[in-house]
Amino acid sequence: MGIHNFFTRFNDLERIIRAPGKFKYEEHNVAAHSWKVSMYAMFFATLEENNGATIDWKSLYEKTINHDFAEVFIGDIKTPVKHASPELKQMLSHVEEKMMERFIMEQIPEEFQDVFFHRMKEGKDNTTEGLLLELADKLDQFYESFTELKRGNTEPEFIVMYQTALRKLLSLPLPVSVNYFKDVMLKDAITEDTVIDLKTLTQHVLNELE
Amino acid sequence: MGIHNFFTRFNDLERIIRAPGKFKYEEHNVAAHSWKVSMYAMFFATLEENNGATIDWKSLYEKTINHDFAEVFIGDIKTPVKHASPELKQMLSHVEEKMMERFIMEQIPEEFQDVFFHRMKEGKDNTTEGLLLELADKLDQFYESFTELKRGNTEPEFIVMYQTALRKLLSLPLPVSVNYFKDVMLKDAITEDTVIDLKTLTQHVLNELE
Amino acid sequence: MGIHNFFTRFNDLERIIRAPGKFKYEEHNVAAHSWKVSMYAMFFATLEENNGATIDWKSLYEKTINHDFAEVFIGDIKTPVKHASPELKQMLSHVEEKMMERFIMEQIPEEFQDVFFHRMKEGKDNTTEGLLLELADKLDQFYESFTELKRGNTEPEFIVMYQTALRKLLSLPLPVSVNYFKDVMLKDAITEDTVIDLKTLTQHVLNELE
Amino acid sequence: MGIHNFFTRFNDLERIIRAPGKFKYEEHNVAAHSWKVSMYAMFFATLEENNGATIDWKSLYEKTINHDFAEVFIGDIKTPVKHASPELKQMLSHVEEKMMERFIMEQIPEEFQDVFFHRMKEGKDNTTEGLLLELADKLDQFYESFTELKRGNTEPEFIVMYQTALRKLLSLPLPVSVNYFKDVMLKDAITEDTVIDLKTLTQHVLNELE
Amino acid sequence: MGIHNFFTRFNDLERIIRAPGKFKYEEHNVAAHSWKVSMYAMFFATLEENNGATIDWKSLYEKTINHDFAEVFIGDIKTPVKHASPELKQMLSHVEEKMMERFIMEQIPEEFQDVFFHRMKEGKDNTTEGLLLELADKLDQFYESFTELKRGNTEPEFIVMYQTALRKLLSLPLPVSVNYFKDVMLKDAITEDTVIDLKTLTQHVLNELE
Amino acid sequence: MGIHNFFTRFNDLERIIRAPGKFKYEEHNVAAHSWKVSMYAMFFATLEENNGATIDWKSLYEKTINHDFAEVFIGDIKTPVKHASPELKQMLSHVEEKMMERFIMEQIPEEFQDVFFHRMKEGKDNTTEGLLLELADKLDQFYESFTELKRGNTEPEFIVMYQTALRKLLSLPLPVSVNYFKDVMLKDAITEDTVIDLKTLTQHVLNELE
Repeated sequence: MGIHNFFTRFNDLERIIRAPGKFKYEEHNVAAHSWKVSMYAMFFATLEENNGATIDWKSLYEKTINHDFAEVFIGDIKTPVKHASPELKQMLSHVEEKMMERFIMEQIPEEFQDVFFHRMKEGKDNTTEGLLLELADKLDQFYESFTELKRGNTEPEFIVMYQTALRKLLSLPLPVSVNYFKDVMLKDAITEDTVIDLKTLTQHVLNELE
Repeated sequence: MGIHNFFTRFNDLERIIRAPGKFKYEEHNVAAHSWKVSMYAMFFATLEENNGATIDWKSLYEKTINHDFAEVFIGDIKTPVKHASPELKQMLSHVEEKMMERFIMEQIPEEFQDVFFHRMKEGKDNTTEGLLLELADKLDQFYESFTELKRGNTEPEFIVMYQTALRKLLSLPLPVSVNYFKDVMLKDAITEDTVIDLKTLTQHVLNELE
Repeated sequence: MGIHNFFTRFNDLERIIRAPGKFKYEEHNVAAHSWKVSMYAMFFATLEENNGATIDWKSLYEKTINHDFAEVFIGDIKTPVKHASPELKQMLSHVEEKMMERFIMEQIPEEFQDVFFHRMKEGKDNTTEGLLLELADKLDQFYESFTELKRGNTEPEFIVMYQTALRKLLSLPLPVSVNYFKDVMLKDAITEDTVIDLKTLTQHVLNELE
Repeated sequence: MGIHNFFTRFNDLERIIRAPGKFKYEEHNVAAHSWKVSMYAMFFATLEENNGATIDWKSLYEKTINHDFAEVFIGDIKTPVKHASPELKQMLSHVEEKMMERFIMEQIPEEFQDVFFHRMKEGKDNTTEGLLLELADKLDQFYESFTELKRGNTEPEFIVMYQTALRKLLSLPLPVSVNYFKDVMLKDAITEDTVIDLKTLTQHVLNELE
Repeated sequence: MGIHNFFTRFNDLERIIRAPGKFKYEEHNVAAHSWKVSMYAMFFATLEENNGATIDWKSLYEKTINHDFAEVFIGDIKTPVKHASPELKQMLSHVEEKMMERFIMEQIPEEFQDVFFHRMKEGKDNTTEGLLLELADKLDQFYESFTELKRGNTEPEFIVMYQTALRKLLSLPLPVSVNYFKDVMLKDAITEDTVIDLKTLTQHVLNELE
Repeated sequence: MGIHNFFTRFNDLERIIRAPGKFKYEEHNVAAHSWKVSMYAMFFATLEENNGATIDWKSLYEKTINHDFAEVFIGDIKTPVKHASPELKQMLSHVEEKMMERFIMEQIPEEFQDVFFHRMKEGKDNTTEGLLLELADKLDQFYESFTELKRGNTEPEFIVMYQTALRKLLSLPLPVSVNYFKDVMLKDAITEDTVIDLKTLTQHVLNELE
């Protein structure tokens, strides 16, 4: 037990591949995903702050870098399962939480247990920081599927993933960020040359939401 | 829906990696594992038949080739989780079963649904064939961990996996097969040159069981 | 020598890649291929039985799971070579057979040698089971090339492989299975979105055969 | 230009492999490295705060998640080169800085340029946060080489990397963190079973520094 | 030091990947690149000789097989950087040269140092052999980008790489080779089926140069 | 047909893996192998020339860079097969030769056919250059197996490969090169730290040959 043991677990997240079992041109691991989510959140929190929001930066970054640590225990199985079964998604969240608790009790020295319990709990609450985490996490799903479709990946799963991510992104109660994404970034994205027609897939979602 | 769709799912099992998230020198996918399990079972069923047992060969082979098909739905998450949580293991089995049922109802033409329900149900029952499946499945876990330890993989997970597989193998109520494994094959196995001392790890388990 | 040694050779088939030397988006190993062939055969044998054929299921499954074991000795070199040289194909079959014989004589305990000689001999004879093996083996070639072409693999080799597999499949003397494949499954297959135009490639072969 | 373009560059860091050209059992990319550095820093900053230091958490996390972004422009070439040539290291830092500047001027909308200049500048200054970044970055070098040596990687480069990282770590002017690392974590690390004798390699460095 | 040590460095070039950090369907290492460059040069030197040129074959082959050995020291960073910064390119050349010199002084036995200095120096001079090296090196850049674009790689970097290589190739003062490439080989190349429209990309460059 | 088509085949050799089907820590492709063989030959030819031999450098380099081109047609199957079957080795050489001939007749413009026939024929004759090719080719087999054994690869195949390569190397009728290898380079090689005891494996071969 101890911090050395905790640190060696980080390496496990480099071996957990997102969307396992689906054909993809490029694999992404959970460690790299966590970094990208932190980078996206950094930008949108800046944008929100520039527009008058108050950001708890410490909380924001701790939410983003820790948000998938619990995948050490059961792996990245939620994405392919969640469309099929909300019950399983919930059961798995529960199990992750229990395993996280046991890990902290058994592995983390007592003096640090409180701060670990606080940091490792589910971060997607209704605070601005929780919403920014949700936005950034969905944005990475958007980019992962965007990039596969751009290169001609014909797995139907990626069309579902793309449109689902887009729909969730555009519905989040963070109007400044969502509008910037929709009016500026999404416009840039769909002017790229792509093998699969992303302009149409995107327009369908935009039409639905109007 | 239809058989074409069913067949294209086989490819998914080639991308599901066993023991995900753990460092290993060589990865194994679930499709190749299913083939190896069928090969092991073929041998032990022959041995049992030579010693007087009656084998339902059709049932045996269908159990082995189908036994992990349901991993298409949630991936290979059981191995790293089962030591930590029997409840999760059970919940996941339940979910797999439900997803399998739904898959058959939605994807398989009605005329074939009965035979699919029969073939895709959990195969590890108390028949000789069910026990041979259990033996063959554990034997592959034995060989996967044996090979990693032989090459010097120092992850403690593989020592646990090796000794757990060995303990289960040696306790199965198939005396002819178990004795052949213990008295002939295991002896050959532990005379190999290995980086990690497998002779001692093996002897510990043998001593425990005496 | 002995069964332990035989079992460790299975791992070699996980490292033998089909269609070596050709660019592909996804690699397939011979172990996983053997499993997929067993799965396809299971379905078509069921279909044949439902339509009045008598299936020797033990023989069928042993043919499918063993049919490429001899590639342990010389690797998967037949596919790229066979278009170029039928003599080499025959020479290699002969060598494989000799190496298989020697392997059995040297490695397999005497009490099991007869059953090994029987199981490991070439399975593609004119029995229903031999034809179903041929069908299933060609079907995997069909699916491997279908999937590469679908994703935009422009290597001419895969167009040749696709049309060759299709031609052979449709010419096999198993009318119930062949018609089901042609009238039901192939129709589903060519309605998929693909980067390379598979509808036309398929129609050419269908026209030829009429 | 624009934020969409900035975000798509994150993916490049997932393809830049650390210590390129050296044999290793496991590769690490710069994106995943940046995440691990953030995790290490989170822990040591907590430890420092518990012992009376004042931490600027926003600055700390921005330093860690941004510290290798400039590798997008020239790749991870510093590690193998730095032992050989401090001049090159300096030239490359200079070039990275210039390319970073140009990137911001050309790609980032004007309203965000100031904050980008501030965040993307070299983070390893003499503030507590700068020192914690240095500690966390060296710690990842420690863990990368530790893990290779543990598994028996005999490349001399990794022994150099291990001892260099250890020497730097133990010399940093952050006594609370350094002592915790040395007295608690390093003790745990060197009790692990390893193929290469890490206890002796570690002891040499400890003796030197006394 | 010594020739054994020199020989073990060749292996490093098998791990240095060309165009690092960019998405590609297929990776190429520097060792394999050096072989392909030697093959291209062999052909064009034959063509030049058939048309009256005098070829110093020993010099030609030593230029081609040695031309990227210095990448052992700093890796393949020039391609992505050169469009952005000619100064860096020059600095890196200088550093490579210095590291090459030091390597020869420290690692190569004295009796062989002179011949090593001669062989390892920059080969792209104005001799026919130097120009053939330049042609062959650019031709490999042409083929690497051609193949990625053919398969639908939408990274703008590869369009730049393709057109840059083509422009340089067509401007080299080796009229016999350049005309053969342009009038015979390029014609064959652009009749291939490709996902991205290479005919148009090629025509743009041809029009520019007329 | 044509030179463009010939050049695109080089890429195939980057995908043909040496010693297919055997576990190895690091794979080597035939293109990179051909480059390394050219580098080894360059050194030993220099050594021979310094000691009075006359070298036909053009012939030497053409032998080394072309020596495995024919593997494009059937892949790298000789190594694992040759210990088992000299007849197969011969049959395969014959087939390679026939396929090479057909390739030249069908693909290479008539004006270049003679020079291609000359360059692509088997290079391992009894000239000094043919012997240097044999030496360099075996040396790469020596280094490939040396490196695997050094890292702890316990596959018996690599011990066989190491000792076979060493035996052949030391028996070649090139006394200057062989003595330099034995007295200088091999001494350096066996002082390296290795997981498997290479000193003893090497001494056995040296003792045999005395």
